[in-house]
Amino acid sequence: MCECGEEIYHEKLPNIYEGVLKSAKNCCTTTTAKKFFPIITWLPKYELNFLIPDFVAGLTVGLTAIPQAIVYGTIAGLTPQYGLYSAFMGCFVYIFFGTCKDVTIGPTAIMSVMVQAHTHNADYAILACFFTGVITLLMGVLNLGVLVQFISIPVTTGFTMAAAITIASGQINNLFGISSSSNEFIESWTYFFKHINNTQRNDALLGIITLIMLLIMRKIKDINSSYKSLTKYISLSRNALAVVVGIILCYFLSSDDWLPFRVSGKIVSGLPPFKIPPFHTEINGTKIDFEDMMGDLGASLISIPLIAVLETIAVAKSFSMGKIIDASQEMVALGLANIFSSFFSSIPISGSFTRTAINNASGVKTVLGGAITGILVLMTLAFLTNTFYFIPKATLSAIIIAAMIFMVEYDRIAEIWRSKKTDMIPFLVTVLSCLFWTLEYGMVCGIVVNILFILYKSARPTIIITEEKLLKNIKIAIVDIQENLTYSSAEYLKSKVVKYISTHSEKIGKVVIRGEEIHTIDSTVALNILSLKQDLLALNCELLCWNWQIPSAGVICRLHPDARKMFKFSKTLQEVVSTNMQESTLTLETDCETITVPT
Amino acid sequence: MCECGEEIYHEKLPNIYEGVLKSAKNCCTTTTAKKFFPIITWLPKYELNFLIPDFVAGLTVGLTAIPQAIVYGTIAGLTPQYGLYSAFMGCFVYIFFGTCKDVTIGPTAIMSVMVQAHTHNADYAILACFFTGVITLLMGVLNLGVLVQFISIPVTTGFTMAAAITIASGQINNLFGISSSSNEFIESWTYFFKHINNTQRNDALLGIITLIMLLIMRKIKDINSSYKSLTKYISLSRNALAVVVGIILCYFLSSDDWLPFRVSGKIVSGLPPFKIPPFHTEINGTKIDFEDMMGDLGASLISIPLIAVLETIAVAKSFSMGKIIDASQEMVALGLANIFSSFFSSIPISGSFTRTAINNASGVKTVLGGAITGILVLMTLAFLTNTFYFIPKATLSAIIIAAMIFMVEYDRIAEIWRSKKTDMIPFLVTVLSCLFWTLEYGMVCGIVVNILFILYKSARPTIIITEEKLLKNIKIAIVDIQENLTYSSAEYLKSKVVKYISTHSEKIGKVVIRGEEIHTIDSTVALNILSLKQDLLALNCELLCWNWQIPSAGVICRLHPDARKMFKFSKTLQEVVSTNMQESTLTLETDCETITVPT
Repeated sequence: MCECGEEIYHEKLPNIYEGVLKSAKNCCTTTTAKKFFPIITWLPKYELNFLIPDFVAGLTVGLTAIPQAIVYGTIAGLTPQYGLYSAFMGCFVYIFFGTCKDVTIGPTAIMSVMVQAHTHNADYAILACFFTGVITLLMGVLNLGVLVQFISIPVTTGFTMAAAITIASGQINNLFGISSSSNEFIESWTYFFKHINNTQRNDALLGIITLIMLLIMRKIKDINSSYKSLTKYISLSRNALAVVVGIILCYFLSSDDWLPFRVSGKIVSGLPPFKIPPFHTEINGTKIDFEDMMGDLGASLISIPLIAVLETIAVAKSFSMGKIIDASQEMVALGLANIFSSFFSSIPISGSFTRTAINNASGVKTVLGGAITGILVLMTLAFLTNTFYFIPKATLSAIIIAAMIFMVEYDRIAEIWRSKKTDMIPFLVTVLSCLFWTLEYGMVCGIVVNILFILYKSARPTIIITEEKLLKNIKIAIVDIQENLTYSSAEYLKSKVVKYISTHSEKIGKVVIRGEEIHTIDSTVALNILSLKQDLLALNCELLCWNWQIPSAGVICRLHPDARKMFKFSKTLQEVVSTNMQESTLTLETDCETITVPT
Repeated sequence: MCECGEEIYHEKLPNIYEGVLKSAKNCCTTTTAKKFFPIITWLPKYELNFLIPDFVAGLTVGLTAIPQAIVYGTIAGLTPQYGLYSAFMGCFVYIFFGTCKDVTIGPTAIMSVMVQAHTHNADYAILACFFTGVITLLMGVLNLGVLVQFISIPVTTGFTMAAAITIASGQINNLFGISSSSNEFIESWTYFFKHINNTQRNDALLGIITLIMLLIMRKIKDINSSYKSLTKYISLSRNALAVVVGIILCYFLSSDDWLPFRVSGKIVSGLPPFKIPPFHTEINGTKIDFEDMMGDLGASLISIPLIAVLETIAVAKSFSMGKIIDASQEMVALGLANIFSSFFSSIPISGSFTRTAINNASGVKTVLGGAITGILVLMTLAFLTNTFYFIPKATLSAIIIAAMIFMVEYDRIAEIWRSKKTDMIPFLVTVLSCLFWTLEYGMVCGIVVNILFILYKSARPTIIITEEKLLKNIKIAIVDIQENLTYSSAEYLKSKVVKYISTHSEKIGKVVIRGEEIHTIDSTVALNILSLKQDLLALNCELLCWNWQIPSAGVICRLHPDARKMFKFSKTLQEVVSTNMQESTLTLETDCETITVPT
């Protein structure tokens, strides 16, 4: 039968016109509206008894968000209120566009560290926030969520670990009351050991005790006791408790012109003004225009959005309970959150690991919980800034360090080690380059090293050559390729076969390449296989292709009319070789009749 | 049988110690010596009757090399003698280290164009040559020849075509006697049409007639006539003939202070001095030190070696007649050629398409032919520079343009189009970005686009889900994966299966993933499959893995002790499903007994 004869000479191409038409049609359906506004789906299904859990969760998250925001504002190199300015709009926007009920968007340690490197004044941070929003939104609309798939678990695990270590290290000086602005791993520790004599007794005591208490309180919820619900709530509200204790201590121990602890400094009271992000700024009286600001922000215009997306999606994945995350929609939500937030003097924001975990543990039912968090932050800005003036820096540092200790995924690292040792390479590359270079470049290093794995595998497919002796004592080499072939492996295949045949002491009359697992090849592979055929002919050896998948065989057959003669479709090897032996110079027509479509 | 039980929990790791020991041992064998000095292999086998073909070929190549070298010297922005300085050492070095008898190393159009952009004076070009050598040698010694495999045939074809168009365009002004120093595609043509009124009648006439004659003479060797060997030699010596005719015309038509044609200018007579490459230089009396020179050379320190390697290996591949090219050894040869050459005031050199083709067509037998070429160039420098002063520029332009017309691989382009349409994308990207950006970046664009193909395929493996109904009316979805899985495809697999199950109207009780073709997976895939199992459980659906390859199954089994229960090894689907039905909560021990190693 000659059925595959036609098929083999015609390449199946995707119909681009139909594809475009289809996506144009999809553009204006209710499914698309539901995809872009997830609130349409969940709000009508909202039940009254969701209100209380959502309220409690929102409140708990808010009580953690406020002290965190204050410290993240200072980590970004700005005054504390900027952290609070960044902490409400994300929550509100996420209600409309977010897909994962637990995710909390707001200022995070990583974002603060990253923006700090480029912050000459607040305007830079706000502009960075605006562009983070625009770029993230654009990536979401262009459906670039796919790119996130190239960040493997070893790389995210490594990045999280390195980020946690970097951020915790950045707080070590504050914990001991040493005045320092260093935020990087090595810098912080060298500064710490150089200035260890400047340790303030009060701050160090408060910091270390708070840290230990936080670690204990985090653990007590795991203890089985009759007061399980009580211990659970103590555990959840531990950050708020630490802040309250810190403020009270500081307030009552202070005298008119003396404070017992170092504090973050005055928090400017009042809601942030609504204004367009600043496209020019002034430093020490010198006007700096838009272009120069962009120049100063430099590569961070790309790296901050990327890390924001990554962090948010990593958080969403951790709490999705196996639900597939729509990465592109998360990008849209994050992008809009940043854009809206930038109108309220915000620094770049992203999904927060700690607060999302607290949200989840508090039993949040829908994204509506975020509204309570946002309102709480606004109320703090309006009425409570004087109270928060008394937060000791050491307390905040203890809260951050405690959060970072639990951010490292120790189990995951053990799992990677157990399941596949080579996956430790991208993990370690990410960790080390993040710690000793910068977080942004470290992540890129990890991704690149991991992509090299894919490329290496594509260049070195597993090729197994075995021998068989069939009738008339002619030795046959059978080449088994366990993968699809791409151009990068073309020469490897050719040289491996030629080397095998030419270095073999016994004469091999035929080489049979099995092709059941070769579903696609490209023109480079096709040209190399034809050239392999010539090489083998020079060695008095015939090349046959056995049971190749039709699309792959087609790529070779379309190159040269005679190539068709190489392809044999049959169940047994015997048949392949003997058909060919009877008549080694079959014409295309007669040969065609021996071809049967493989089942 | 429980044989695979042990196997599945132990990862096979490569023994690094043994690997290092083996390569250390390989370091000092005669095989390695033969690899690094191919001359050891071919010289003892040299036959006396090789001498004449080698001599004739060397002579013919030399007669082309001299005019080409003169024009490449001027393309590089230097005086003509630098082209000749670059044209002999490569030939001598290649005799000792080269592996491909046809390859001729020397100045080429692409190298000249690339070095010209960074040439403030000759010292820059010589330093570039030295570093091209050092970097190429290093790449060869580090066995980076592997990297060349990531340059596919569509990309090399596109690069060659774009380079030919760029170089030919750069000569269009000279062909018509218009004075211009432009070397780029758009620049040259806009200059040409702006200054078309400046066309010199003599130069244009000589140029066009020479070009037409060269094209005809190139074609006459294909005509079947009784004077076949005569036409063949006329065809081979056409460049030399054109030069001789041009010189004679120019010499006899000239008067004392007038030349009928534009000429390249005085060629400084004498052999180049042997001196260490210049690590500092002087421009208009200002001393420029090493660092500044390196800064000026910039990215070309990387791009020139890369393109040199690429060009040489592309040439070697074209004429290897299917023989496997040892890319790393070619790099060593090219690197040493550049290093030695830089001591004789050479510009960067690489394998030449045109001269290699002439060498091959002249019937060269061994690399020894290069010696004749080299000696001829040296003799020209010593005695014939006054003669070559009379070479008209138009003649040289015609020679270059004719060579470039035949450098484009028209058949190859047609083959790529026929065999696989999508391979036209990297081809077109390379051609367009080479023409409208620069040759270096164009090549990089093509390589990157082509690598994206590999990455896309790794992220979107072909997954086919079919349904089957087996006993008790339980519907089973069978997932067929036709590739190995990498982390980039992990989520795609998961979301595809979950979407299929959750959007299906009829209830599906079991999902079976066939794993015969899954030879390797990584920890990200393993974690995603375990999470898929959980997701499906939430949908009341069981996940089973059927006949997976042991190494892949092992990655999952080592993650979680219970994971083992998912894996079934049997011939029929019936068996897989029914074994499991009898007892759905098998313990690890009893389950183990149902496992048989797949044959």
